[in-house]
Amino acid sequence: MKKPDPGKSILSANDEQARKNLQRLEALHLAAVNVMASPGAGKTSLIVQLLKHLPENLSRGVIEGDVAGSIDTDYIRSLGFPATQINTGGGCHLTASMVEQAITTLGLAGPGLLFIENIGNLICPAAYRLGERIRVLVSSVPEGDDKPRKYPAMFAQVDAIILNKIDLLAHLDFNEHNFQAGVRVVNETAPIFRVSCRTAEGIDTLAEWLRQLTTTRSK
Amino acid sequence: MKKPDPGKSILSANDEQARKNLQRLEALHLAAVNVMASPGAGKTSLIVQLLKHLPENLSRGVIEGDVAGSIDTDYIRSLGFPATQINTGGGCHLTASMVEQAITTLGLAGPGLLFIENIGNLICPAAYRLGERIRVLVSSVPEGDDKPRKYPAMFAQVDAIILNKIDLLAHLDFNEHNFQAGVRVVNETAPIFRVSCRTAEGIDTLAEWLRQLTTTRSK
Repeated sequence: MKKPDPGKSILSANDEQARKNLQRLEALHLAAVNVMASPGAGKTSLIVQLLKHLPENLSRGVIEGDVAGSIDTDYIRSLGFPATQINTGGGCHLTASMVEQAITTLGLAGPGLLFIENIGNLICPAAYRLGERIRVLVSSVPEGDDKPRKYPAMFAQVDAIILNKIDLLAHLDFNEHNFQAGVRVVNETAPIFRVSCRTAEGIDTLAEWLRQLTTTRSK
Repeated sequence: MKKPDPGKSILSANDEQARKNLQRLEALHLAAVNVMASPGAGKTSLIVQLLKHLPENLSRGVIEGDVAGSIDTDYIRSLGFPATQINTGGGCHLTASMVEQAITTLGLAGPGLLFIENIGNLICPAAYRLGERIRVLVSSVPEGDDKPRKYPAMFAQVDAIILNKIDLLAHLDFNEHNFQAGVRVVNETAPIFRVSCRTAEGIDTLAEWLRQLTTTRSK
């Protein structure tokens, strides 16, 4: 007889809750986007740019995950967008049950987009579904072009990769060909969007790609 | 009766192994430096600069931690320095028992410095001692000045903070006063070294500070 694996049962319980969250969000006509990245890659800046560039007739809200504090939630609210905070204490990723409560607190209704900003971490969040329609990874130019080869599980599992801070390309030794080749080793299909949250370059294209999610339903 | 906490017993078993590693390294006259940071903050670049700037009469070696691959170990070896690789699979931090094996594999003897490059992660590594004399955190300018407030446990527990990529200050909205104030909320004493691994600015000062570790013993 095989011993039960507590890690595995935690993951399947999380998957089950994630499925419920997805159903609930679909009923609300909300497409959730799980935004993952290293600390400081620009998750919040990206979300803020998208909130501003998405059409005004769409509902737009944010669930902010952080180990501690509510700096980003306070900032997003100050811009007039609905946002709610999850603090994990020491936890290195969000879970589906944390997100379940946050959906209730936020009280957003669609049609629209719900951004879920995960904990800044390129490892742990990859294993935990939250109820999102799609998963995106923000990777920033200053982190270096070797990240897809160093954190393959994260790059493998996402639906889109957003290369941020392209305004810094002139100041850094970042080889875009090497980055793209590294992505394609583990992920053959995810589109790679090039953006600068500082100058807003590339944001319109990404916003339009995300907007199209709200006209379809989860498969 | 209190239930046993499996997380706690894993941590104390790790602490016990870390103490053994520390004793072993002291007997070898090696001071180990546990280098922690976000992905892409410049851990490897910093270690390489320090290897080059430390006096040649000191032994210098590296234990490289990565989720996958051996890009950095191969690079450090190509420069003529001893290095050995730990791959954690999906693990988000090194453990003392991983480091025990790596010390044996590396076969370095002092007097000198052993750099242990931890997994790129601002959360998980903070809870796991490895047998290091000191713990340093590399935080880089592009990550933003809010990182001490967002990842307080990591900033609280380190013996020194190395602010890297200061050559990019002119191109980014990074408020050094806000960064330092954030550090001091959780850590009153750790020195903050300002460096650029790209231009080597500040490396000599840091190398001299680390060299002094090799003339003392662990308390």
